[in-house]
Amino acid sequence: MAGEFDLIDRIRARVVARDDVVLCIGDDAALLQPPAGMQLVVAMDTLNAGIHFPHDTAPADIGWKALAVNLSDLAAMGATPAWCTLSLSLPEPDAAWVDAFLDGFEALARQHAVALVGGDTTRGPLSVCVTVFGFVSPGRVLRRDAASVGDEIWVSGTPGDAAEALAQWSACGARDPALRARLDRPTPRVALGLQLPGLAHAAIDISDGLLADLAHVCCASSVGAEIDIDAVPVSDALRAAGLEPDTRRTLQASGGDDYELCFTAPVGARDAIVAAALEAGVPVTRIGRIVKGRDVVATANGAPWTPARAGWDHFGG
Amino acid sequence: MAGEFDLIDRIRARVVARDDVVLCIGDDAALLQPPAGMQLVVAMDTLNAGIHFPHDTAPADIGWKALAVNLSDLAAMGATPAWCTLSLSLPEPDAAWVDAFLDGFEALARQHAVALVGGDTTRGPLSVCVTVFGFVSPGRVLRRDAASVGDEIWVSGTPGDAAEALAQWSACGARDPALRARLDRPTPRVALGLQLPGLAHAAIDISDGLLADLAHVCCASSVGAEIDIDAVPVSDALRAAGLEPDTRRTLQASGGDDYELCFTAPVGARDAIVAAALEAGVPVTRIGRIVKGRDVVATANGAPWTPARAGWDHFGG
Repeated sequence: MAGEFDLIDRIRARVVARDDVVLCIGDDAALLQPPAGMQLVVAMDTLNAGIHFPHDTAPADIGWKALAVNLSDLAAMGATPAWCTLSLSLPEPDAAWVDAFLDGFEALARQHAVALVGGDTTRGPLSVCVTVFGFVSPGRVLRRDAASVGDEIWVSGTPGDAAEALAQWSACGARDPALRARLDRPTPRVALGLQLPGLAHAAIDISDGLLADLAHVCCASSVGAEIDIDAVPVSDALRAAGLEPDTRRTLQASGGDDYELCFTAPVGARDAIVAAALEAGVPVTRIGRIVKGRDVVATANGAPWTPARAGWDHFGG
Repeated sequence: MAGEFDLIDRIRARVVARDDVVLCIGDDAALLQPPAGMQLVVAMDTLNAGIHFPHDTAPADIGWKALAVNLSDLAAMGATPAWCTLSLSLPEPDAAWVDAFLDGFEALARQHAVALVGGDTTRGPLSVCVTVFGFVSPGRVLRRDAASVGDEIWVSGTPGDAAEALAQWSACGARDPALRARLDRPTPRVALGLQLPGLAHAAIDISDGLLADLAHVCCASSVGAEIDIDAVPVSDALRAAGLEPDTRRTLQASGGDDYELCFTAPVGARDAIVAAALEAGVPVTRIGRIVKGRDVVATANGAPWTPARAGWDHFGG
């Protein structure tokens, strides 16, 4: 078994270097040089074993996901990621586990040039807390409260895959590794988020479920929304699962853990958004419209539709 | 029982307002305006139940301590606190518990004008993770690697109290609430830390024990240290505990959780440091000297002295 300081050394050896990190891991705190004239964007999310990932999740996937869910929040703000801190609670100081965890964490950190600058390792039930830091130019941030009546509603990717993976791994039937990969290794839509300022009005990441997160946007913006649930794209893997249409719709509308972006934009931005998404390499789809009111109304086959389950509450879910 | 979003509302209602917080709790991430020309100082520490605080600790004390241990890291850097994020894992969404937790957290946050700008609440074994953000002018930060041969070594306050409280509450004998208060409600030495840039060379906070943390300074600075363990001030409460001298010395030299500052400074700064400490309202005491070499050597009654226990490792206990 390793000690706390051995683990810290292992972590330090895997850090992405950046010129704006003045003091990294190894002092009482990190010392960082924010870029002049930019605003700082900060998000923090914890993953607890058995709550945010199944107990059988590979350490590398836990490492990836712990950073991914946080980068997804920066993506939803249109921010450029820069730094992160990591607090790792482990039942035992297991160096092999930490190395595997870092394999996933570092792989995603390198993709986005994110430097791990501090944090702690300590004993406790398995839990991973990450704080991420990014930057936006003043006035360029994507907010939840900026949706306007008449905006079109867009979603990236194919929501529902992660929720179906969770369902498959909780049951005894067939299990599709392609779906599991979407649960374990979500792709934070950082590239898309960086394309959206100036085009989109409001944005949010779908961590709690499409309808629930869209409701957050509507509440913050004092607007309503109408979406066609059958316009939400279905992945090949989710289609191959052979679900009843309504079961599939519920996963897509209310399943958590997708980490896709949902955003609103004026009709006139449609072509520019398609071009921006192409540039970012992320498929986007129009699924509805912002309307007067306060409610999120879904339709399927032209008729009002309600999911079997409303959304994700980290205490209720 | 409350839901996740009820708890977030309770937390949001208790936040200290600051002009440099553009977007607070309620979006995908916080949006902050760093002051021009300053460097950002970031620390992150987690408290897990039964590891970092006894299971019988009052929620308000957990709230206080979770912020205090992080502010202590900023103090050791000479930084001015500004913002924090909080991730709270709770077995149940207990609103009364959260309100009590916030009583302690908010009390300390108001003392230092720290705005809680984001984070999350989720289900899991009781665990509190805080990230704090502060600022220093470039070149003014207090580092671990800046100790020089000939520096005097100083310590604030009366180390050992928290360790004796932990010992008393782990045993069946007499228990002194004054000592327990030092364990549960440590005072981060922010005011002292802000006085030290320009006077002190190196600084660290004593979270792992005086000798262990001084060894971190020596390692980072490539120097050795000699300290007179009997020069370390003893609080009235610790003296009243009536310990054998060597037991008391061990608590003072190696007990964790004190959150006092240990710093080094040239002899010529002696009077200025005494004046600065008076200004900060924090007693400071000279306990030794930085020397050539790599080792931390303690003496008691003029003879070499070794504690029964070396220091605090969060995995070693």
